[in-house]
Amino acid sequence: MKRLGGFALERSDGRSKQTQLTSRLKQMIQAGELQAGERLPSTRELANELLVSRNTVVAAYEMLVGEGYLESQLRSGFRVNKAAQAFRTLSQRTRTARERTLTPRLPGMPVPFRPTQPDVNLFPLQIWNRHRTRVLKRGACLLQYQSRFPIGLDELRQNVAQYLRDSRGVRCQWHELAITNGSQQALFLLSHLLLRPGQRVYMEDPGYPGARNAWSHAGARIIPVSVDEEGIRLPVDDALKAALIYVTPSHQFPLGTCMSLARRLALLQVARTSNAWIVEDDYDAEFRYTSTPQPSLQSLDEQRRVIYIGSFSKTLFPGLRLGYVVLPPDLIERFTALKSIVDDYSPLIDQATLAAFLESGAFYAHLRRCRRHYAERQTFFLEQVKRYGIPLTFPVTGRGMNLAGMLPENANDRALSIQLRNAELDIPPLSRYAVEPVRPGLVFGLAAFDKRNILKGIEKMAPIFAEKFAKRRGSRSVPHPAKISSSRKAPLATLPLSK
Amino acid sequence: MKRLGGFALERSDGRSKQTQLTSRLKQMIQAGELQAGERLPSTRELANELLVSRNTVVAAYEMLVGEGYLESQLRSGFRVNKAAQAFRTLSQRTRTARERTLTPRLPGMPVPFRPTQPDVNLFPLQIWNRHRTRVLKRGACLLQYQSRFPIGLDELRQNVAQYLRDSRGVRCQWHELAITNGSQQALFLLSHLLLRPGQRVYMEDPGYPGARNAWSHAGARIIPVSVDEEGIRLPVDDALKAALIYVTPSHQFPLGTCMSLARRLALLQVARTSNAWIVEDDYDAEFRYTSTPQPSLQSLDEQRRVIYIGSFSKTLFPGLRLGYVVLPPDLIERFTALKSIVDDYSPLIDQATLAAFLESGAFYAHLRRCRRHYAERQTFFLEQVKRYGIPLTFPVTGRGMNLAGMLPENANDRALSIQLRNAELDIPPLSRYAVEPVRPGLVFGLAAFDKRNILKGIEKMAPIFAEKFAKRRGSRSVPHPAKISSSRKAPLATLPLSK
Repeated sequence: MKRLGGFALERSDGRSKQTQLTSRLKQMIQAGELQAGERLPSTRELANELLVSRNTVVAAYEMLVGEGYLESQLRSGFRVNKAAQAFRTLSQRTRTARERTLTPRLPGMPVPFRPTQPDVNLFPLQIWNRHRTRVLKRGACLLQYQSRFPIGLDELRQNVAQYLRDSRGVRCQWHELAITNGSQQALFLLSHLLLRPGQRVYMEDPGYPGARNAWSHAGARIIPVSVDEEGIRLPVDDALKAALIYVTPSHQFPLGTCMSLARRLALLQVARTSNAWIVEDDYDAEFRYTSTPQPSLQSLDEQRRVIYIGSFSKTLFPGLRLGYVVLPPDLIERFTALKSIVDDYSPLIDQATLAAFLESGAFYAHLRRCRRHYAERQTFFLEQVKRYGIPLTFPVTGRGMNLAGMLPENANDRALSIQLRNAELDIPPLSRYAVEPVRPGLVFGLAAFDKRNILKGIEKMAPIFAEKFAKRRGSRSVPHPAKISSSRKAPLATLPLSK
Repeated sequence: MKRLGGFALERSDGRSKQTQLTSRLKQMIQAGELQAGERLPSTRELANELLVSRNTVVAAYEMLVGEGYLESQLRSGFRVNKAAQAFRTLSQRTRTARERTLTPRLPGMPVPFRPTQPDVNLFPLQIWNRHRTRVLKRGACLLQYQSRFPIGLDELRQNVAQYLRDSRGVRCQWHELAITNGSQQALFLLSHLLLRPGQRVYMEDPGYPGARNAWSHAGARIIPVSVDEEGIRLPVDDALKAALIYVTPSHQFPLGTCMSLARRLALLQVARTSNAWIVEDDYDAEFRYTSTPQPSLQSLDEQRRVIYIGSFSKTLFPGLRLGYVVLPPDLIERFTALKSIVDDYSPLIDQATLAAFLESGAFYAHLRRCRRHYAERQTFFLEQVKRYGIPLTFPVTGRGMNLAGMLPENANDRALSIQLRNAELDIPPLSRYAVEPVRPGLVFGLAAFDKRNILKGIEKMAPIFAEKFAKRRGSRSVPHPAKISSSRKAPLATLPLSK
């Protein structure tokens, strides 16, 4: 039997002794220092030799048996697995120079003023975890395979449906509501259910790139429609031939407009005439600061043409990946079948935790708290913009996580956004969300940044704006985004951006 | 100001006092007992009246403000929101008789011998939760939007790649590995990337319905190929015209066969000649009890035609919904773009927890423990089948979570499975996994059931088999599944079943 002296486990290594030991033994097998079939020292011997506990050695040996490097034999201890030779060469073959040069990235936090990021530090993680612990006590069924629930646990579907009926006036029974992996999955699944290649999708422009990507991926032809003070300016035209109309009526993305009642009724009429589906993305409706909430477009729809989409990414946290869609009765079955094929069902522990979180009222308390903070941040931001004399106008305020700020008419919002990025500010240009030329502007996310960070951001912005707009500081006539000077050309943009 | 007497909060109600109070107030608003604009009692008054703490009333009022039922006014307390009238009628309209009759279901546990269910009670949930707590201490970035990681957190991709290199001989660098929502999502995404309608997919028959559904959904033409003792019997034919070949070489699903080396090399050759992709689904390779693990098919592939798929549903727990796929370098970019469109990215907290769980070695310890239990259960089951004289033969044993049991040649496995189901046994017939006629058999899952439950299952099975096969108990010649009597016809089955 071989003695394995000649290496020590280092305290300074940052890895546990067990990890150090297993990786050292692997290296020895790979380098041929330990041959296939060779016997290893007993766990007691090696523990004494390395001055570690015997448990550490046992755990390391067992891990290597699990990985196929060692074999354990009753009464004769551990040997190097004969098959380990194969792994050895393969493992060496794959270790190329490229592996070493590709540095893994760590997830980071957004910098001001990245749009549509909630303040996840406000999220009551402790309360959430308490609900999680409680639902896990029910038994192991949340861990087990549950293919009967492709569109969500019934308890969650009930609580979300209740919330939508109460808060958004949505017409829905719980079995008409499906849980998805964020609203993006809802968009994707709908694009596959509702669209055939070449069909027309009308959508707001500027609008949400994630939706545009889903429709385009299904082969649809996107028809961009401009937005004015009342919302989408859909032509009232019998020859519209729309298969689908995508809108964000509560809070247009990214301009912030709330669609007027007249426009809502006209939209429903157009959809009826052209026999089109409407997808209502109610992504940001929870955040209203100065006015009372307005019921959803779906609540006005007698014909069940409106498909209602929402997400917990903004109201809870985006890393959760849970969203929902309210479907007309005749789509539910096909949606369910497709979700089964796409990924079986969504993670169960989070679903049950969310159901309990909604049930307890903790969700509503959290929303209230966010609303208060987000309102304050918006007000503070607007005050500071004014104080620093930054030439931006904000046509829509008083709601939402973002503010669209309009620039003087002949400004280049792309160039400005790049300049701001060089100062570590993440403020996308309005044109990045648009297909057609659009008034120059910037989209500011304010929710995720406290006053200190808002001020820092403003202080970085101010000199850049001062330099850029020094000459025309005097004239600040900034018309509404709908009234675009036709001489301007914005490049086409379809980059995926968070909403 | 109105007094709200006349209702008491019941201890026996099972809901918290706050929940009872909010729902009672909603009812009163909906029924018109509280009118739009009407002032509510102060929180102190109502608390005294109802004998609850003032915090309960404050919380209930705030929740109702959040939902739009009440308005709060500085110094003048709470009033019924004027917009609440709208919600009220809508809310009433949607409450139909159907809602009351559709009973929500609760997730349940599998009954013997449902295939491919791990024993989730063996899962070290406490250790998992400890890692979860630890990764959450890193800061809020795991809660935030992280669109830069559509195919998984880099730390997880690294640890899974390491595991696959070490344990399965998989050739991969971490950036070639993508995290998916279970292996089903990997199958779906691949079907969309690799297949055009009408193209041919060769797959093992019997085979995994989840894969068949994904290929069919993409419009592919499925060519079923029978399986013998060495694995898939692919014709060596230059005119194969396969776009994709789907196999489970380590442990054929559901027969259990391990593909021979000769067959593996032939398969790679065929794929090369016909320029086809191979998808290797290594779903169950971790569970080998009597022999040493064998490297993956992918490890033999010099041409990077093999796409390697796996899942943590069997090794950890299915409710987690995390799987992985190792992609040839030229597919990574397209796969990443598609995953972004499909659902942005997978849940982050679970990903980071899993990365830590792998890193710590807890994963390997858990695998070892499962292997020990699953091996014992398989042995015990086979002993009991023999002891009870049940006329089943098991061509492949010593590995996997399932066992395919062959019935006498002219038995009707579908009818038998239905009879077993009536005795609360969940044992699908082999023909349910097959497109072409296949030897009659049953697929038993053993991993999730301890000895007591296995024995109970056997005791329920025994009389049903005794009655059915009373006459031919004497002759038990059961040939290998590949040798099918051509006179038998099995109905076509494409039901989604867990693997």
